[in-house]
Amino acid sequence: MTTSFKGAKPSRRSFLTGAMAAGGALAGAGAVKAAGADPLITEVQDWASYGGDGVDHAPYGLPINFEDDVVRRNVEWLTAGTVSSINFTPIHALDGTITPAGCAFERHHSGAIELKKADYRLMINGLVDTEMVFTYDDLERFPRVNQTYFLECAANTGMEWAGAQLNGAQFTHGMIHNMEYSGISLRSLLEEAGLGKAGDLKDKWLYVEGADASSNGRSIPMEKALDDCMIAFKANGEALRKEHGYPARLVVPGWEGNLWVKWIRRMEVMDQPVQSREETSKYTDTLEDGTSRKWTWVMDAKSVVTSPSPQAPIKHGHGPLVITGLAWSGRGKITRVDISKDGGMTWETARLAAEGQDKALTRFYLDTEWTGEEMFLQSRALDETGYVQPTKAALREVRGENSIYHNNCIQTWYVNANGEAENVEVS
Amino acid sequence: MTTSFKGAKPSRRSFLTGAMAAGGALAGAGAVKAAGADPLITEVQDWASYGGDGVDHAPYGLPINFEDDVVRRNVEWLTAGTVSSINFTPIHALDGTITPAGCAFERHHSGAIELKKADYRLMINGLVDTEMVFTYDDLERFPRVNQTYFLECAANTGMEWAGAQLNGAQFTHGMIHNMEYSGISLRSLLEEAGLGKAGDLKDKWLYVEGADASSNGRSIPMEKALDDCMIAFKANGEALRKEHGYPARLVVPGWEGNLWVKWIRRMEVMDQPVQSREETSKYTDTLEDGTSRKWTWVMDAKSVVTSPSPQAPIKHGHGPLVITGLAWSGRGKITRVDISKDGGMTWETARLAAEGQDKALTRFYLDTEWTGEEMFLQSRALDETGYVQPTKAALREVRGENSIYHNNCIQTWYVNANGEAENVEVS
Repeated sequence: MTTSFKGAKPSRRSFLTGAMAAGGALAGAGAVKAAGADPLITEVQDWASYGGDGVDHAPYGLPINFEDDVVRRNVEWLTAGTVSSINFTPIHALDGTITPAGCAFERHHSGAIELKKADYRLMINGLVDTEMVFTYDDLERFPRVNQTYFLECAANTGMEWAGAQLNGAQFTHGMIHNMEYSGISLRSLLEEAGLGKAGDLKDKWLYVEGADASSNGRSIPMEKALDDCMIAFKANGEALRKEHGYPARLVVPGWEGNLWVKWIRRMEVMDQPVQSREETSKYTDTLEDGTSRKWTWVMDAKSVVTSPSPQAPIKHGHGPLVITGLAWSGRGKITRVDISKDGGMTWETARLAAEGQDKALTRFYLDTEWTGEEMFLQSRALDETGYVQPTKAALREVRGENSIYHNNCIQTWYVNANGEAENVEVS
Repeated sequence: MTTSFKGAKPSRRSFLTGAMAAGGALAGAGAVKAAGADPLITEVQDWASYGGDGVDHAPYGLPINFEDDVVRRNVEWLTAGTVSSINFTPIHALDGTITPAGCAFERHHSGAIELKKADYRLMINGLVDTEMVFTYDDLERFPRVNQTYFLECAANTGMEWAGAQLNGAQFTHGMIHNMEYSGISLRSLLEEAGLGKAGDLKDKWLYVEGADASSNGRSIPMEKALDDCMIAFKANGEALRKEHGYPARLVVPGWEGNLWVKWIRRMEVMDQPVQSREETSKYTDTLEDGTSRKWTWVMDAKSVVTSPSPQAPIKHGHGPLVITGLAWSGRGKITRVDISKDGGMTWETARLAAEGQDKALTRFYLDTEWTGEEMFLQSRALDETGYVQPTKAALREVRGENSIYHNNCIQTWYVNANGEAENVEVS
C-alpha cells in the first residue's frame, strides 16, 4: 500500500489511482486497465471458496480471532495486584461512540464480586419516612428509564500529570466507556421511601455504598441524587457484566466514575457528607500549597485523538487521511472539537459524527490529506457551557504538579514521516 | 415474592409493604419494624464477605454465568442444517435499544465466512467511469459516518402467518437487531468511481454481492444506494463480528435484512435489476391469486411486547407491573405505540423511552397495575408517515395465507392469572 501511494500528489484522484494499483497488486495489476475488471472479478470470485460456519445455538458470540488484540489491558507497574486495580478500554481500535461491554474498562477496589439477583438487596435508610429494603424484582417494577452516558474514572489521564507519557490512547485515556443504560431513576426510589422527614433537601446528602468488601462509600448531594441519577440493571441492552456491577449499579451522569457505585446495596439520607476515604484521602487534588480540591465530582470537557495514535499508526501512506477521536463533557453536550496538526499553533474545526448528546461520548472526524509531514496532533473540546479544554501548561499552572485526578488537558501525539505516533509534551 | 404480595391492594403503597416484607423475609422480617433497619443492614453487610476477582488483562469479557440463558437460539425443525439457517436474538431478556453483538441474530445462506482484512477487496464495476477495486485500508480513508439502525430479516414473524405460534418473542420477533454502525457512505464510493457513464440515475440499479459461496446477490435501486446506504466496518464501536460480515457489510437502512450483504465484495452499476434468486423465488410474497408482490424492500412499522411474554412471565405477583417492548419502522421514526390488555378492544398509549430515531428501534413502556386478571396483550406501532401497524386479520385479508415474508401484524400474548404468557391469535 504505502509504496503504491509514494510520490502521488495528495489528491483524491491520485488516491484512486493508488486504489486501483492496490487492488491490482494482488490481482494481476498489469491487466487491470487493459483487460478491464475481469481479472479482478476472477480473483474476487475465488473468495467464494471460503467455507462457511453454521449459525450458533446458545453460545454467546465473541469477536473474530483476527481482532484478538482489541481487548482491555492493564499496566503491570500501576498497581500492587489485580484485586484493587484497573484496566483500560482499547479506544484506539474502536469507532463510533458505544463501548462494547466486553472491552469496557474495569476498576475495582476489592475485586469484582459475584452477586445473584435472588441474593441482591438494596436498602434505603436514614432520614426517610420509611426505611426500606428492595429485592431485585421490586426494583424492576418501578418506571424504567434509558439513557446513554459516559463513565470516566477520575484518574483517567492521571499518569500524564508528571509526564509518564504512556504510549497509547488506551493507556492515557482508556479509563472511560460509554453505554446505553436501562434502569430506574434514583428519584423514584427515594420518593418511595419518602423524604418528608429529611426536611429541606438543599443541604442533605445521600451516602451510597456497594456490596463489595471495599463498600466504596461516597456522599452525593441530594440535589444531584434527585436530578438524573439512575439505578441501572442493563448496559447496551443486556444485564450489567459482573465487572460493571451486576445486578445493579448507580449511574451518576457526568460525574467521576468512583461515584457510580457497583453492586449498590445501601443508600442513607444524611444531613452531612460522610467524608469517607474515597472522598478525602482519595479522589481529591492536592495543590501546590498542600491544600486539596474536594467535591470535584464533575468531569470537565475533554477529548483525545484515537487515530492516528501510538497504537494506531498511519499505515496507508500519503493522500487522504481520516483523523478521528472522542470528546465528552460532564457538564452537558459537546458543541465543537478543534484539531491542531502543529501542537496548538493553528486549529481546524472537526466534523461531529452526530450532534453532541448530554454527558455522552461524541465521535469527531477530520477528513484531511497527509503527505508525510510531521504532525503534533491535538484535539480541543468545547461544551455547551462555553468551557474550553485547557492545555497541560494551563492546567498545571492552576493545579500544580501534585495532582493525580481530573486531568482533562489537551493530549499531543507526535506523528513522524513514517506515520508512527508517540506521546509527547509540547510547551 | 408472590406470596408476600398476595391479596395486597394493587396500589403503590401496598407494593411498598410488600417490598418491606420481601426484604424482611430473608432477613428476619419479624425484627424489621421493631428494631428498625439494623437487622437488615447486618444482613446486607454479610455480602461484603463475597470474594472479588481481579481485573482482566487481555481476555474479552463475557456475561456473568447467571445470564447464560440470554443467548441467540435456533429452531431445530426450521432449517435442514445450520449452514443455511438462522438463529434468534433473545429480545425477551433485553432492555433499552442497543443489541449486543454477542447475542444479535445470524442469518447465513452458505455459512459465516472468515475473511482477513488483508485479503478483502471491494470491486465497483459496470456503468461507472472507472472500474475500481478497493482494499480495506482504502475504504477506511473515505469520510466516516455513524448511525444506529435496526436490521430485520424479511422472514421475521413469518412462521406466524400460518399460526405456528412459537412460544416466545425471541422466536416470533427475534430476527432483528439494532446497532450503531461506523463506516462510509455508499454514495462516496460510487462517486469515486464516477457515475457519468450511467447517465440518468433514476432508472439505474446497483447489483451487490458478498464473498460467501451464496454471494446473496441483490439489486438495489440507485436512488436508495445514493441515499443513506453505508459500507460498515464496525457495529457498536468494534469490528463487525464474523457472523455479521467482517470486515465489511452493506447497511441498507429500513430495508429487509437480505439486502444488507455481508462480506460485500462487488457492486455493479446496471441499467436493470438482475432478478436474482434472492429477489424472485425468495423474499417475495405470494398472494391468493398466485401472483407475487416483488420489490417489497421496506420493513413496515411493527412492534412487539417483550415483557411480559412467554419467555418472560410475571413472577412478582400483583401490584405495579412494567409492560415493555420494541417498535420500529423502515419508513422513519416511531411516533406512538399503543398497548391493549384486552386483545385490541381498548388501547392505552405507551411511554417512549426516547424520541423515535430514524429507522432504529424504539423502546416503549407502560407503567401499570396488575391484579391477576387475564390479559390479551398487544402493541400497535405508528410511524411518522401516519402508517398504523395492522392486525393479523387485516394483513391476511390483503395478503392471503401463502406469504412467509413481511409479516408486521400485531402480536398477541395471553397472560393467565399466574402471570404465565403464551402466543395466541385473536379474531
